[in-house]
Amino acid sequence: MNSREWHLVRRPTGRPDEADVALVTVEVPEPAPGELLVRNDVMSVEPYMRGRMSDGPSYAEPYALNAPMTGHAVGEVVASGDADVPVGARVLHELGWRELAVVPTSAARVLPDLDVPPSSWLGVLGLTGFTAYAGLLTVAAAKPGDTVFVSAAAGAVGATAAQIAKAMGCTVIGSAGSEAKVRYLVDELGLDAAFSHREPSVRAALKDALGRAGTDGIDVYFDNVGGEQLECALRHMRLFGRLALCGAIATYDATEPVPGPRNLLLLIWRRLRMEGFLVGDHEAARPAFERVMAGWLAEGRVRSVETVQEGGIDQAWRAFTAMLDGENVGKMVVPLCG
Amino acid sequence: MNSREWHLVRRPTGRPDEADVALVTVEVPEPAPGELLVRNDVMSVEPYMRGRMSDGPSYAEPYALNAPMTGHAVGEVVASGDADVPVGARVLHELGWRELAVVPTSAARVLPDLDVPPSSWLGVLGLTGFTAYAGLLTVAAAKPGDTVFVSAAAGAVGATAAQIAKAMGCTVIGSAGSEAKVRYLVDELGLDAAFSHREPSVRAALKDALGRAGTDGIDVYFDNVGGEQLECALRHMRLFGRLALCGAIATYDATEPVPGPRNLLLLIWRRLRMEGFLVGDHEAARPAFERVMAGWLAEGRVRSVETVQEGGIDQAWRAFTAMLDGENVGKMVVPLCG
Repeated sequence: MNSREWHLVRRPTGRPDEADVALVTVEVPEPAPGELLVRNDVMSVEPYMRGRMSDGPSYAEPYALNAPMTGHAVGEVVASGDADVPVGARVLHELGWRELAVVPTSAARVLPDLDVPPSSWLGVLGLTGFTAYAGLLTVAAAKPGDTVFVSAAAGAVGATAAQIAKAMGCTVIGSAGSEAKVRYLVDELGLDAAFSHREPSVRAALKDALGRAGTDGIDVYFDNVGGEQLECALRHMRLFGRLALCGAIATYDATEPVPGPRNLLLLIWRRLRMEGFLVGDHEAARPAFERVMAGWLAEGRVRSVETVQEGGIDQAWRAFTAMLDGENVGKMVVPLCG
Repeated sequence: MNSREWHLVRRPTGRPDEADVALVTVEVPEPAPGELLVRNDVMSVEPYMRGRMSDGPSYAEPYALNAPMTGHAVGEVVASGDADVPVGARVLHELGWRELAVVPTSAARVLPDLDVPPSSWLGVLGLTGFTAYAGLLTVAAAKPGDTVFVSAAAGAVGATAAQIAKAMGCTVIGSAGSEAKVRYLVDELGLDAAFSHREPSVRAALKDALGRAGTDGIDVYFDNVGGEQLECALRHMRLFGRLALCGAIATYDATEPVPGPRNLLLLIWRRLRMEGFLVGDHEAARPAFERVMAGWLAEGRVRSVETVQEGGIDQAWRAFTAMLDGENVGKMVVPLCG
C-alpha cells in the first residue's frame, strides 16, 4: 500500500520554510509480528517540533534528515501483527506526519472507549492537557484563590491551563496574539482578563489586565513563550510566587541566543521559584489526570479547544507553520484519512 | 558620651564613592527604659549594604540619607535600661557603622556563652553561616554525593557554603577573584577544584575545574554573583539540578538593567529549579543550624574564615569598598572599640 509522509530534508535556519521539507510517497509493508499497520485519522502539530528540526542541544533527539518526522496521531488498526490488538482498534501513537504508519505494539496505546472525538486524545485528554495539569498543579503548586497568568493562553496548552485554573477557583489572566483571541479567552473561556502581546507595551497591557481582573499581583506564571512576557511577569510576581516554564515559543526561531530577563534579581527579593518541566517526568500522575479531566469535560468546566486544518496530509506542513504564526486557537489538528 | 558613626549623604551611582558618606561625631544619650547602651566590639560589612544605599526596588528599606547606616555588630552593654540585661552582657544587634549604639532590648540578642570569638556571630555562626546553610540544604536540597558549585567561594557566605558542602560529602567546586584565593580554597578549605573568574574564559575555566574535580556536571549551584557565572553554571547543570540564588554581586553596581542568562531554555530541557531566597524566611531552622554549626566548628570540619580590617571606625568605609573589590577572604569584619 502507498502512503504519503512528510520528510525533513534540510534543517531550518530561523523561520522554517517549505524548502526544508518534502511530501514523499512510500510503499508501506505488511506489519511484522509485534507491529500494527495504522491508518491515521488525525495528527497534531506542536511547537516542540520546531526544536526537533534543529540539531542544537535540546531535550529531544533532532529529527533525522530525509526521514519522516514524528508526532502524535490517532488512528485505526487496519492490519495487526499482535493477537491482543484487533483490527478496528483505535490507537494513540507517535508516528504522525504520515497517512499510514507501521507501529510497534509497544509504542501504541489502545484508547479507552470514552465518548470523545479522537482528536481529544491529542489535546485536552492527551499530553497537551496533561502538560497544563502537571505544570499548574505539580510544578507551580497553584491553589484556589491564586492569581494565575498564562501566556499564549489561546494556544493548546495555554487554553487548557487557563481553564483548569478557572475550574480550580483561581483568578486567571491570559495573553494571546490577536484581539479576536483575547475576546475568545474572556467571552468563551471565562478568563478574568486578557490582553494581546502585540500591543505597543506588553508591560502596560499586563498591568492593565491585572487591574481589570481586580488583582495587583501574580502568584503563578505559566510560561509558554519566554522573552518579554517572562520579564513583565516577573515584574508583577507576588512574594513566594512560582513560575512554571513550559515553553519559549517567542525564542524558538532565534538564530542568536536570546538574553534572559533583566530583572532576575527579583527572584531573590521576592523569593520566587522558577522551574522548567517536561511532562514526561510526571507520568505517575497521568491516571489521576485522565480521571479528573474526563470529569471536568463531562461537567463542561473545561472544553476541548481545537483548530482543524482541512485538506489531509497535503496541508500538514501548512498547519505547522500556521501554528507557529499563531493562527490556531487551542490545539492545531489535521484530519488525515478519517 | 561622644561616638562616631558613618552616615550616607548621597546615593551612589555605580561604584560607591567616599563622597557618598561622612564620618560624623554625635553625642549619645543615656539609654531610656527598655534600651541598652552598647559599645560595639566589632561590625561587619556586607554586599547587601550596597543595595540599601540605592532607593530602587529591593527587599530591604533603603538607608535614609544623613543618618547612620545599619548592619550587624557585636558589642558589650555599658549601660542598661533593662533589668534583665546586665552591664557587661555581650549582644548581637543591627546598629553597626558606629562606635556606641543605643539599642532597644527587643532588637538585641544576648549571646550564649560559647567559646568562640565575638566576630563568629557576624560570620559563620551568624546570618552569614545560616544563609549558606539554608540556601544549600533547604533551598537547593543538596545531598551527599552531589556536585556543588559555589561562586564567590572565598566570600563570607561562599566560604561557609563550600565548607558545609564538603562536610556533607559533596564534590565542591568554587570560583574566586584571584589566584591566591583559588589556592586558599583548594589548599586550606579542601575544595575539589577552584578557578578564578578573572580568567579570559569563565566558561572554559569552569569546565576545566569540573574535570579536575573528576565530575562532568553540577547538581547544585549556590549563586552569589549572577551574570556570566550563572550562565556558565546553567550550561553544566545536570538533569533536575537546583540553583539557589543568594546574591548577584556582579550586577549590583550596574546602572543599566543587566540581561539574564541567554540559556534559560535549559531550565526546561534539563528540568532545573532556580529559586531566590532570603535567610529571614528560614528562621524556624535557626536553632538547628546553630547546633549543627557549633558541632562542625568544634570538630574542625568548618572553620570561621575572616578578614580583619584594623584601624577602628575610621576604616569601616574602606573595609566596605575593599569587600566590594573582593579584597577579603571570608567575612570582612572591623574591630571598633574592642
